Amino acid sequence: MSLIVVGTMAFDAIETPFAKTDRVIGGSATYVAYAASNFVQPIQQISIVGFDFPREEMKELEERGVQLDGVKVVPDKKSFFWSGKYHLDMNSRDTLITDLNVLLDFDPVVPESYQTAEFLMLGNLDPKIQLSVIKQMKVRPKLIVMDTMNFWMEVAMPGLEEVLKEVDVLMLNDSEARQLSAQFSLVKAAKEIMKMGPKYLIIKKGEHGALLFHGDQVFFAPALPLEEVFDPTGAGDTFAGGFMGHIARTKDISFDNMKTGIIVGSAMASFCVEKFGPQRLKEISRADIDNRIQQFVELVNFDIELV
Amino acid sequence: MSLIVVGTMAFDAIETPFAKTDRVIGGSATYVAYAASNFVQPIQQISIVGFDFPREEMKELEERGVQLDGVKVVPDKKSFFWSGKYHLDMNSRDTLITDLNVLLDFDPVVPESYQTAEFLMLGNLDPKIQLSVIKQMKVRPKLIVMDTMNFWMEVAMPGLEEVLKEVDVLMLNDSEARQLSAQFSLVKAAKEIMKMGPKYLIIKKGEHGALLFHGDQVFFAPALPLEEVFDPTGAGDTFAGGFMGHIARTKDISFDNMKTGIIVGSAMASFCVEKFGPQRLKEISRADIDNRIQQFVELVNFDIELV
Repeated sequence: MSLIVVGTMAFDAIETPFAKTDRVIGGSATYVAYAASNFVQPIQQISIVGFDFPREEMKELEERGVQLDGVKVVPDKKSFFWSGKYHLDMNSRDTLITDLNVLLDFDPVVPESYQTAEFLMLGNLDPKIQLSVIKQMKVRPKLIVMDTMNFWMEVAMPGLEEVLKEVDVLMLNDSEARQLSAQFSLVKAAKEIMKMGPKYLIIKKGEHGALLFHGDQVFFAPALPLEEVFDPTGAGDTFAGGFMGHIARTKDISFDNMKTGIIVGSAMASFCVEKFGPQRLKEISRADIDNRIQQFVELVNFDIELV
Repeated sequence: MSLIVVGTMAFDAIETPFAKTDRVIGGSATYVAYAASNFVQPIQQISIVGFDFPREEMKELEERGVQLDGVKVVPDKKSFFWSGKYHLDMNSRDTLITDLNVLLDFDPVVPESYQTAEFLMLGNLDPKIQLSVIKQMKVRPKLIVMDTMNFWMEVAMPGLEEVLKEVDVLMLNDSEARQLSAQFSLVKAAKEIMKMGPKYLIIKKGEHGALLFHGDQVFFAPALPLEEVFDPTGAGDTFAGGFMGHIARTKDISFDNMKTGIIVGSAMASFCVEKFGPQRLKEISRADIDNRIQQFVELVNFDIELV
C-alpha cells in the first residue's frame, strides 16, 4: 500500500506579521511526506535537491519510512529556494524570491522499486513533469491525486489540460478553481473542472475550510478555528499529505472515505501552521493527531431531530 | 413558548450584479418573523411602519401567527427605506440610501399581552431601544438574543456595552466581531466579546458559514454551497429567525441545541438568498425546509475510525 509523492524539497525564507525566518526546510513533497508518513509507510519520494539540502533532514525522513531512491541529489547546484511575505490577514502573501536552482533540471525517473505503488500524489509542478510520472507507471495507480497552481494556468494551460485528463482527484484553492473554470460560484466551478477529467475535486479555502465535490455530491470540512496562525506555509501540502496518508492506509477510494481523508488532512494542516516549516509535524505524536481529529468531530457534530 | 421579535419592517431597493428591484419588503423583524413562524407561533412582533406599509403584508404575517399588537403604524410618515448595491462577489455592498422616516420616532412599548414571552430576539437597532425593551419585561425571558452592527460601535459604544451585559447571545458578522474586540483572530475576538456580557456568541461569516462560541466550546456550521446567490439581503436576519424559531419551539437553551438551531438558521438563510426580499420564505413548505436541513446533514456528516 505504498504511496508515491512527487514534488519539491526546498528551502524557504518566510516573513509573517509576527515573525521571520531566513532559512527553513520547505517544499511540497517534504510537507506531504511528513504528514502522510503518520498513516502509511513506505512513502516513496520523488524529488530533486542540491548539495546544500541537509543530510539530517534526509535521515529524519528515512526514519519515518520515507524512501529516497527517487530523490536526485545534484552535487554542484543549490536546492530550490522560495521566499515570501504574508499580509496581515495571513491569507494572502507576496512571493519575494523564487530561485529554481536544481528544479530547472527536474526530469524525474520513477525507480523500479516504486512501480508497485497503489497511490500517487503529484505536488504542484510543471504539468509536463506530472504527466511524465504518470506515463512512467507500468500499472496505473489505484488513485492519482494532483495539486496545481494559477501559474501553470497562465503559462502551460495545454499541458495542464492534458494531465487533468489522467488524474482522479484535483486539489486547488478557491481562487485557482475560479481561474481554471472562469466561474465565480464554486459549485459551478466544480462542475466545469470535473468535465476536464478529475472525477473528484477538492477546493481548499484556507481558514474557511475545504470542499469535496464528486458528481452531484458535496462535502464540507471546516478549518479548525485557531487563536494564532504562526505560519501558513505548507498547510495545503500538509492537508494533501494527511488526505493521501489516510486513503493509502485504508485503501478505500470511496467518496465517504475521502470525506474522512479531508478531516484527517485538515487536522494535519492545523498543526502545520503552529510553527515555521515542518517543525510542528516532526513533534506531534499519534495521540496528538487523534485528539486533534476529535476536535474536528466536536466542531461540526450536531444532532437534528425534525418535527 | 412565544417569541418576541423587535426590529424594523421596511422597504428595500436592491441592486445586484444580476438584477435590480426598486421596492421590495424588507426589515430585520420581517425576515425574522417569516423564518421563525415556521417553527413556533405566536411570534409577537415589535416594530414601527408608516402609512405606506402594505396591509396585505400585515395580513400575511398575521396568517402565519405573527401578532402585530406591538407594531405601531404612523399615519403621516413613510416606512423605513434602505437602498444598497452589491459588489460582484455578493459578499460586500454599498449603502446608497438610508431614509429613517418612522424609525426616528421608534420608542417601542411592549404590549401587556407580550409579557409572558419566554424568548426575545432583538434585531439590529439603536442599543438604547434594545435596552428599553429588555427593561420593560416584567419577567426576564429565558433567552435574550441580540444582533448589532458596526455603526453602533462607532456612534453608541457606551450604550452597546450596556445592553451587551443584559443579553445571553450576541450575533454579529466576522468584521463586526473583529471591530468590537479589536482582535483579528475570531477565537480571540470571541473570548473578548464574551467578557462583555454574552455567554454565547454567534459569528456569521456569510458564504463561509457561522461559528458558535460558549466558554471553551466552539461549533461550526457551513453555509450551503449554492450555484447562485440571487440576493443576500436579509440572510442574516433569516438565519436569526430560524435559530430563534428552533430554540423557542424546543424550549431548550443548551449549547447542543443551539448547534441544531444554527443548522436550522443556515437552512432558512439558504432559501432567503434565492429571491428578492422575503419572497422565497413565503413559498417554501415544511417539507422543503426538512429537505434543506437534510442537505446540511449530508454536507458535513462523516465517519471517523481512528487506528
